[in-house]
Amino acid sequence: MKFRNKSPLDIIIDRDSSVPIYLQIVQRIRDLINSGALLPGFRLPPERRLAEALGVNRSTVFQAYRELKTDALVGAHVGRGTVVVHRASPESELGEVRKLSWGQLVREGRTRQPDPLLRDLLQLTERQDVISLAIGLPDPELLPLEAFREIQEKLFEDVGAQVMLHCPTEGHTPLRETLSEWMAMRAIHCDASEVLVLSGSQQGLDLAARLFLDPGDTVIVEEPSYFGALQVFRAAQARLIGVPTDSNGMCTDVLARILERYRPKLIYTLPTYQNPSGAVMSLERRHHLLELAYRHHIPIIEDDPYSELRYDGEPIPPLKALDDHGYVLYLSTFSKILFPGLRIGWLVAPRPVINQFVLVKQAVDLHSNTPGQWIMDRFMRDGRYEPHINSARNVYARRRDMMEEALIRHQIPDFTWRKPTGGFYFWCRLPDDVERSQLLTQAAEAGVSFLPGWPCFAFGTDESHVRLNFSYASPEQISEGVARLMAVVQRATFEPPLARRAQIGTSPIV
Amino acid sequence: MKFRNKSPLDIIIDRDSSVPIYLQIVQRIRDLINSGALLPGFRLPPERRLAEALGVNRSTVFQAYRELKTDALVGAHVGRGTVVVHRASPESELGEVRKLSWGQLVREGRTRQPDPLLRDLLQLTERQDVISLAIGLPDPELLPLEAFREIQEKLFEDVGAQVMLHCPTEGHTPLRETLSEWMAMRAIHCDASEVLVLSGSQQGLDLAARLFLDPGDTVIVEEPSYFGALQVFRAAQARLIGVPTDSNGMCTDVLARILERYRPKLIYTLPTYQNPSGAVMSLERRHHLLELAYRHHIPIIEDDPYSELRYDGEPIPPLKALDDHGYVLYLSTFSKILFPGLRIGWLVAPRPVINQFVLVKQAVDLHSNTPGQWIMDRFMRDGRYEPHINSARNVYARRRDMMEEALIRHQIPDFTWRKPTGGFYFWCRLPDDVERSQLLTQAAEAGVSFLPGWPCFAFGTDESHVRLNFSYASPEQISEGVARLMAVVQRATFEPPLARRAQIGTSPIV
Repeated sequence: MKFRNKSPLDIIIDRDSSVPIYLQIVQRIRDLINSGALLPGFRLPPERRLAEALGVNRSTVFQAYRELKTDALVGAHVGRGTVVVHRASPESELGEVRKLSWGQLVREGRTRQPDPLLRDLLQLTERQDVISLAIGLPDPELLPLEAFREIQEKLFEDVGAQVMLHCPTEGHTPLRETLSEWMAMRAIHCDASEVLVLSGSQQGLDLAARLFLDPGDTVIVEEPSYFGALQVFRAAQARLIGVPTDSNGMCTDVLARILERYRPKLIYTLPTYQNPSGAVMSLERRHHLLELAYRHHIPIIEDDPYSELRYDGEPIPPLKALDDHGYVLYLSTFSKILFPGLRIGWLVAPRPVINQFVLVKQAVDLHSNTPGQWIMDRFMRDGRYEPHINSARNVYARRRDMMEEALIRHQIPDFTWRKPTGGFYFWCRLPDDVERSQLLTQAAEAGVSFLPGWPCFAFGTDESHVRLNFSYASPEQISEGVARLMAVVQRATFEPPLARRAQIGTSPIV
Repeated sequence: MKFRNKSPLDIIIDRDSSVPIYLQIVQRIRDLINSGALLPGFRLPPERRLAEALGVNRSTVFQAYRELKTDALVGAHVGRGTVVVHRASPESELGEVRKLSWGQLVREGRTRQPDPLLRDLLQLTERQDVISLAIGLPDPELLPLEAFREIQEKLFEDVGAQVMLHCPTEGHTPLRETLSEWMAMRAIHCDASEVLVLSGSQQGLDLAARLFLDPGDTVIVEEPSYFGALQVFRAAQARLIGVPTDSNGMCTDVLARILERYRPKLIYTLPTYQNPSGAVMSLERRHHLLELAYRHHIPIIEDDPYSELRYDGEPIPPLKALDDHGYVLYLSTFSKILFPGLRIGWLVAPRPVINQFVLVKQAVDLHSNTPGQWIMDRFMRDGRYEPHINSARNVYARRRDMMEEALIRHQIPDFTWRKPTGGFYFWCRLPDDVERSQLLTQAAEAGVSFLPGWPCFAFGTDESHVRLNFSYASPEQISEGVARLMAVVQRATFEPPLARRAQIGTSPIV
């Protein structure tokens, strides 16, 4: 593809100047060449055209071009016109310009860089030869493409340009209404003014960090937790305190003891089908957590991307539904169930909190993309969301069972897991004697990816877990992926790598 | 001889830490109390003594003690000083739950709230009875709805689900390539790896602030400047220094003097068809600005949303095209020419800078919405962008002329303006004797809106200007809107409002 070469020449003739006009033209073009604005090969406009554009005689331009040729800045070529041939080295009195050292310019707080892990995982999933058990995405094959196509077409027909124009920072009003009604399905009763549309629920975490966290503030997180949230809190220079989890979710008795010693600014939890552990916080613990929050006056961020994806058992109300006192900020998203590239999530919170979020969001991105909001709203209003969730649940429940069967089929001693009752993940514990440092690389070589556990811990020290996703890959890929991974783990258990053996071999000599 | 009075408090201040010193003191004392090292009844040293011992300001210790009191860890007693108090034992029964005071939870830095002005203006444009000369948007009627509909349909047909799935944080790869080629039209030569797709160019400002600005850092801005940028820099707690502008853009001679006294972290400029003033920075000043940046080692953020919308004169190369040393971060957007609700902008910068932006963007919103990127890429690749720009330029040039005619037709003594050669705005100076405080409200009542000048100034003190947009309203609305506004201004000049007359009348009595 080639865009038409537009002239970057900007010549303003000053007729009151004592400098002859031809020389003004020469000076300007020389400046442009010396500055690099006109690169070698750039074709100057034909003399007649430039003369017309400037309102001067053609002979004036002719004289200017001749002068530039004399200076060896341009050359004339038959059929090509007048072309920039020479680029003088910058000859200002500046001397040599020092290169900017961007690393030093980046502010102190940013030097603790967010981990590019998620981005790398996204890239790994694009490799055709690697089966991804790493990423936390829905299977694209299951997404309702035809329905979206129909809705999009109808929106063009019925609504027109509006679908792609600006919308309020708070979100497309009909979508806020629809979401507030949908929330009743999760036993959360709110009205549209308590809903803020986000550019993905990740943005909600980021906005919360900006609003509430000063450097050095303490944030309570589960161990393990969603690594994208840990990234955000770390980037805000918060001090993270991890609370252990078991099969009933966050151990609130440990939290109680922590709260006697620290005054955190926020508690961050994924109570339902937790990422990465799959755990569901029991109703008792939910009540206990709320009680602790009330007692110590600490707001809770409840992150709930997965609760619609329930495979066994009865639904359990979100914290937000149990909270009578407005302590819970509730985040959710469409990205685990519908097209994640639309980047639409939402926050449910007391109105004063919404107002604060809106003020920050406005400066951050004005508003979330408009077409994504219209299309999601129509999809829900057409009554298509619930049937879609139900069919996705059926498919993912089977895949979960399939993954478990594969894990059992290829079972390795001391490789253990907890079967999740919803969500996207098996959280597996590696045998103690597995050499872990190279596991991800070895798996990629064997054609399978997974999420290592360490980024999910506040201090990144736990290396004993892996997270396996069963929503993204096809059933065949899940079986094959588990087989490949188990083979890699087995090799890493029973055949320590050469370097390690060598070390064992040589150590007595030292 | 005098021994240094050694405090039993073992507090070590880390001056390189990003944690404020008062907070370091708070954390240390809190830890000592919680660990039992400081028992109830322990008297903390008087503020002045601790300040001397630590070599910090007395106000810092004051702030620390106040925080400890707020946390009910210490109490102040006349004659006894500041004393560690008994920690309330956790009650088993909750009693009455205290409402969370969200205002107090919001971090200190956020209390300087961004102004909701932009949001309010967006809402004002939705009122049918108000002609908007306020907002900076393209006319929806001119947007190529049919082309987008065709492209969308083809994308569903040819590409399918991919169009709505995740994409790399850096952006949809084909769009990055297309943009890098498009940049050559603006004399900027870059490759795709130097282009980052943004969720609108507003996001570029926000990411830059996060990467480069610590509280208290200095940022150079033009006076006037884009108020959305000032919001972002203020939210980052930067200290803004305004450089005056004239018809040739930023007065770089003034900047030169400022740079002898300050060491700013960033220079922010809109050199072409500046928002709000419409000014174009001359080539000489562009070179001078770059030279100053090189000399003082300061990166420049060049914000260039309007340069395609040129109505008179030859194009002038952007700073980025003149910069041989990688000092310029170049921001642009589709939102002034195509559908603004798609929220797609971009950054051109040296690769190490792009990499830093990507790491921050990943934690902020993972990536910009995917369908918007596909559709923009196809629109450009189909060769539709340039013809669309050309037709938009023709229309807006006529509207500009129409607005000038209306301003002349309704001219008021001392109401002056500069006719812009591109962009979206007339920047007008109000007569000195206009009563300004109620002007926006009076205009809204009369059915017309405008952008008051004060949010465009670093300190919001200039009340003598208004910005009038000529792209959004239809030609008839422009004429009518200017007529309404001039009537309001005239009334405010010659008939001081009742309240004011009353005040003048009553003041002698008081």
